[in-house]
Amino acid sequence: MRIADRLLATIDRVSSPQVVHAHCDLPCGVYDPAQARIEAESVKAIIEKYQQNTDPEFRERCVIIKEQRSELVKHHLWVLWTDYFKPPHFEKYPQLHQLFNEATKLAGAAGTKGSTDTSKADELLAKIEEINKIFWETKQA
Amino acid sequence: MRIADRLLATIDRVSSPQVVHAHCDLPCGVYDPAQARIEAESVKAIIEKYQQNTDPEFRERCVIIKEQRSELVKHHLWVLWTDYFKPPHFEKYPQLHQLFNEATKLAGAAGTKGSTDTSKADELLAKIEEINKIFWETKQA
Amino acid sequence: MRIADRLLATIDRVSSPQVVHAHCDLPCGVYDPAQARIEAESVKAIIEKYQQNTDPEFRERCVIIKEQRSELVKHHLWVLWTDYFKPPHFEKYPQLHQLFNEATKLAGAAGTKGSTDTSKADELLAKIEEINKIFWETKQA
Amino acid sequence: MRIADRLLATIDRVSSPQVVHAHCDLPCGVYDPAQARIEAESVKAIIEKYQQNTDPEFRERCVIIKEQRSELVKHHLWVLWTDYFKPPHFEKYPQLHQLFNEATKLAGAAGTKGSTDTSKADELLAKIEEINKIFWETKQA
Amino acid sequence: MRIADRLLATIDRVSSPQVVHAHCDLPCGVYDPAQARIEAESVKAIIEKYQQNTDPEFRERCVIIKEQRSELVKHHLWVLWTDYFKPPHFEKYPQLHQLFNEATKLAGAAGTKGSTDTSKADELLAKIEEINKIFWETKQA
Amino acid sequence: MRIADRLLATIDRVSSPQVVHAHCDLPCGVYDPAQARIEAESVKAIIEKYQQNTDPEFRERCVIIKEQRSELVKHHLWVLWTDYFKPPHFEKYPQLHQLFNEATKLAGAAGTKGSTDTSKADELLAKIEEINKIFWETKQA
Repeated sequence: MRIADRLLATIDRVSSPQVVHAHCDLPCGVYDPAQARIEAESVKAIIEKYQQNTDPEFRERCVIIKEQRSELVKHHLWVLWTDYFKPPHFEKYPQLHQLFNEATKLAGAAGTKGSTDTSKADELLAKIEEINKIFWETKQA
Repeated sequence: MRIADRLLATIDRVSSPQVVHAHCDLPCGVYDPAQARIEAESVKAIIEKYQQNTDPEFRERCVIIKEQRSELVKHHLWVLWTDYFKPPHFEKYPQLHQLFNEATKLAGAAGTKGSTDTSKADELLAKIEEINKIFWETKQA
Repeated sequence: MRIADRLLATIDRVSSPQVVHAHCDLPCGVYDPAQARIEAESVKAIIEKYQQNTDPEFRERCVIIKEQRSELVKHHLWVLWTDYFKPPHFEKYPQLHQLFNEATKLAGAAGTKGSTDTSKADELLAKIEEINKIFWETKQA
Repeated sequence: MRIADRLLATIDRVSSPQVVHAHCDLPCGVYDPAQARIEAESVKAIIEKYQQNTDPEFRERCVIIKEQRSELVKHHLWVLWTDYFKPPHFEKYPQLHQLFNEATKLAGAAGTKGSTDTSKADELLAKIEEINKIFWETKQA
Repeated sequence: MRIADRLLATIDRVSSPQVVHAHCDLPCGVYDPAQARIEAESVKAIIEKYQQNTDPEFRERCVIIKEQRSELVKHHLWVLWTDYFKPPHFEKYPQLHQLFNEATKLAGAAGTKGSTDTSKADELLAKIEEINKIFWETKQA
Repeated sequence: MRIADRLLATIDRVSSPQVVHAHCDLPCGVYDPAQARIEAESVKAIIEKYQQNTDPEFRERCVIIKEQRSELVKHHLWVLWTDYFKPPHFEKYPQLHQLFNEATKLAGAAGTKGSTDTSKADELLAKIEEINKIFWETKQA
């Protein structure tokens, strides 16, 4: 999708409050990858603050909160993978399983939980953006 | 702010991944009323499904999950009220305390927890939208 | 209220097991600021132990647990603010919104979460005591 | 302990903010059976409201919240039993193990979780009061 | 693997307390599909009790607890899928992604959360057993 | 029970998927000390990794996760003590109360939470094994 199209899609989505996107396991049908993205942005901001502040107690708080927020990223992604995406989606996007597996791993021990390197958070955000793109394609289908 | 300006602001915000809006209590600085809104949209969708389905077990699940999602709305709003908004904001927007108090009450026993009436969810979403508007005004200030 | 009166009020309250004070969002009607106060006392005790013990691992545990207990203080205060206090209370005590906002901030990043200074815990306990006083006045009204 | 003494002890305790009673597992040393009692009072109030209101959806909410609050009673009691009480206490009060076991059972399936009978909540509150009495005796020892 | 071999493997595993199988995201390296299986067995037992007891309040408790235990099944399976299994496993067992996706769906709205049919719990347990078999094969590799 | 008998019992248990052992507070009747044991094995593995790695951030994560996993050990043991074991069991095994009290203490501040010594984890695992043995004896009675 070209950038222009994406902006139009974005405007359409943001300016249409009546269009909702489910996420609980009733299921209510309201899903939105923004939930995972916001937590991942938080993880990235925590890592940046960690890099800029050498106070040991502050850094401990960074590690504690980064652990919690990374876990939330994993949770929101797992919910999308299991509850929102259905067999026809996995058929159309055969890379989807691996994409989610890699994204959740990037929020774990080999990713933002186990690292204080900003690049890990960037990789995580990029994977979430890939998922986000597919998500909105399936919503418009 | 005119609608055109708001759309431009929205495009700018959504298409600029480097602009983040904090929400954890490090604080990481990433806040976004979308977290409360998504849960409130879920609450509304649950109520609609409740109205359309008289199966007792399904309705029980609606009540259980509506309770949880309403609690999440309250939590996300409390975090904004305590962690994001600062004394100068409360000075500039003197209605802000009452707005948050009413919004969180609307997600409680006198609101979406204690009711299966869609209008309660609509009132809640409207309050969150009022908060959302003020929030983005303060971000651009 | 003079100290003598307060002691009498205290005796009356403590020795009357049949008087209960609600706190869940049914609502059950059982509220008690003691829940926030006990957690805040815990936070203060943790900070004191932190000051008296330089073992790094012990101090890490202090930071972890102080984070959790401060969050509980915030939660119990939010519940009182949203669920117990009603419009007539806010009219009678116009300082109440700000009081709760400051108290919950004192249990956050700018307070006991972000600090290992006993004075922060003392400030938090003093705010909770102010809330406690108003709470019991409204219960007797 | 005579009632007069208990009242004096109570005044002393309540009016002395520097005397704290630990409850987290640092341990901070701040324990207070009031935490379990407040939740049990909530459970009793929920049951009373259940008895007075036959609206099915309201009753469902009662069952959901009674389940949660009963679990909190169990948790607060377990913490006292494992974290506060030490071998010398169990030697001095040989009934203590059974007392805690019965109290936590009374907040479970055979007690307030599995029943909507007020008498179960009363039995639970009575057991907690027995624990409370022993607790304060050990604090004064 | 023949049944005889599997029994021997089982004996070996159970009788060797020093052999551990990690599950937290340090990672500690201790994983065990038994965690998901025990919760799924609980879900099945809850459904059986639901079928045998028509008391409305008891059935409500079944629905509440079935919801929680099904969520735990999903969580334990997600942890295995993201944290334990690595790219070489997915190469060797190309069905693994779909297996986990189907298993977690079977603990959700289209499975044990949304149904009180014992057969759904049996399907879930069968999927977990398939995962369990692959898990132990990879541990012995 | 001789070792040979115990192995046979183990085979029987593991290879008979229809034999379940309850754990939720419906109660569903599915209990299994394996839940506490797996978490305790995780705690032990975390301590071992802590000893082998002096990276400060890694060690902080060890302390954070050890705290959580130790809490889970306590929770699973409390559930067995309150929900599974009944008065006749306590009569037949008079040491049972003290055994659970010591085991849960070993997962707390005086045990694996407050220590990074492998021997504490070994003591905890040994206590859980004692409980496990009694548990399976009562299941076969």
